[in-house]
Amino acid sequence: MKDKTELYLDEIENTISEIPLDIEPRDLYAPVEYSLQVGGKRIRPLMTLLACDMFGGNTDDAIAPAVGLELFHNFTLMHDDIMDAAPMRRGQPTVHARWSTNTAILSGDVLFALAYKYMSKVADEHLHPVLSLFNQTVIEVCEGQQYDMDFETTDSVSSDQYMQMIRLKTAVLPAACLKTGAIIAGASQKEQEYMYQFGENIGLAFQLRDDWLDVFGDESKVGKKSGGDIVANKKTWLYIHALDKADKHQRQQLLDAFMNRIDNEEEKIRLVKGIYDQLEISQLAQDFMQTFYTKAFDFLQKINQPEKQKEKLKRLATDLFNRTW
Amino acid sequence: MKDKTELYLDEIENTISEIPLDIEPRDLYAPVEYSLQVGGKRIRPLMTLLACDMFGGNTDDAIAPAVGLELFHNFTLMHDDIMDAAPMRRGQPTVHARWSTNTAILSGDVLFALAYKYMSKVADEHLHPVLSLFNQTVIEVCEGQQYDMDFETTDSVSSDQYMQMIRLKTAVLPAACLKTGAIIAGASQKEQEYMYQFGENIGLAFQLRDDWLDVFGDESKVGKKSGGDIVANKKTWLYIHALDKADKHQRQQLLDAFMNRIDNEEEKIRLVKGIYDQLEISQLAQDFMQTFYTKAFDFLQKINQPEKQKEKLKRLATDLFNRTW
Repeated sequence: MKDKTELYLDEIENTISEIPLDIEPRDLYAPVEYSLQVGGKRIRPLMTLLACDMFGGNTDDAIAPAVGLELFHNFTLMHDDIMDAAPMRRGQPTVHARWSTNTAILSGDVLFALAYKYMSKVADEHLHPVLSLFNQTVIEVCEGQQYDMDFETTDSVSSDQYMQMIRLKTAVLPAACLKTGAIIAGASQKEQEYMYQFGENIGLAFQLRDDWLDVFGDESKVGKKSGGDIVANKKTWLYIHALDKADKHQRQQLLDAFMNRIDNEEEKIRLVKGIYDQLEISQLAQDFMQTFYTKAFDFLQKINQPEKQKEKLKRLATDLFNRTW
Repeated sequence: MKDKTELYLDEIENTISEIPLDIEPRDLYAPVEYSLQVGGKRIRPLMTLLACDMFGGNTDDAIAPAVGLELFHNFTLMHDDIMDAAPMRRGQPTVHARWSTNTAILSGDVLFALAYKYMSKVADEHLHPVLSLFNQTVIEVCEGQQYDMDFETTDSVSSDQYMQMIRLKTAVLPAACLKTGAIIAGASQKEQEYMYQFGENIGLAFQLRDDWLDVFGDESKVGKKSGGDIVANKKTWLYIHALDKADKHQRQQLLDAFMNRIDNEEEKIRLVKGIYDQLEISQLAQDFMQTFYTKAFDFLQKINQPEKQKEKLKRLATDLFNRTW
């Protein structure tokens, strides 16, 4: 028998597949269909349904905004992929690569509007709080993407600046997903806030783990080549802290590597990873992400609901933290 | 003393100038500030306030969504200018030309989110109808832009297809602006629908006039060189109907011109305009747009409000129809 998590994932997939996208004009809607079919793990809408369920809410009332949050997530990917000039996503060509930049802009826009349409399908009494949270989240995600792009051309990025960037770009969305479920279930303001904090900390741990996996993960499990962030000169937490701990010689080597003074990609990755190893950055990063994971569970702990009710969400959070993909 | 229209325009300008945009990250918000400062006639938000006032509503309740509609309009310009590779807008460089395509994408996205934020600032009882109308409008405007782009590479566009395209791209927005004002004033469903139809017909007449002005307008008043649509091979109403009325020879000349077989721009404009004159397309177009203008006023007529209450809106519609700019 399927457990709740599996049932909810089925429901999310069904609801997404029922969005009427087989309509004209095709050049507008075909890329939207494509981006939703290419998939994704549907973690964000699952969070909304699990949060709603945790507070004893009716998940039928939460499925539309849950899907709205997934549509928004897919919209950000479509536009981010243009800005990052990314050719592939989830093993398939990105929309701008397969069609064109103009298509990815406009199909992204209509996907954004569809996200709002689904977010709006909630009871009258929840519409203002759900939309106000969503509006704020959307704006913050845009700010996060802007900071991420800014950092590409910034010489030095502090650890605080980096954490602020990933908070905006990555962590506020799972936070909003969880809080949306709580709002719809009729949780108190305080409980809603705890859910938000739980989600934000899970999101931060998730992104730090993402950075870590890029360098220290198992290529065969992660599904992409190691060291992509190093090749792209991404100023991740690992890099920022290595630079901070480095002696004069290591520092110069890191700066040289990130200013593209090493032509060979393999050599560049080996050199940077070597310095990370010397400075024990892997352990430092793992300890650091553990603090967010712990903080997240502290917030969940504060919520006065039977432990049994929290089980599925705890499981999801733990899986996200321990993931090797 | 200022009349209501002038007072409302002041209020719109004030509300726009009070949007907090002097914040970080600058590369995200500076282009938004720029696009709002470059101006525009604020016709759409004015429609919302005048419609609200016409039904005896309190325009203080309508100012936020009125501004939301103007923000949305500016968002569409920012993204359309990328897609059309337009270097200038309102006599100033477009955002993508002054900054970059990536900047125009992301600043556009945040402007879109701000539009929703302002649309949401309405009383609980109006939020669902206002948003549902706005969502539908946004989706239709995207569809209209897609059809417009599709037509660039379509050999033959019918008059019906063209009218459907301008309805979506141009006419549903003023219709939504007027209906939003009516909703907030508490007008009946039927009255809301009449306002929508009034706006849609005004929008159609407006766009047809825009096409007409491009060819037959006074350059010094229109503020741009005549014949831009001809140079760009735009399949406007004028072109579609000229093609339809043309004899074999004229038809071949038109087709040749629109397949860029005439190198000299001036010569191309002179030739096409010459055929339009032979076929009396100018008068045909004027008669045709008059039908929408008349239809618009028929809808306004159906609304049971004192004539005095309708005065400002009638004046605005007449000015829009008779405009030489």
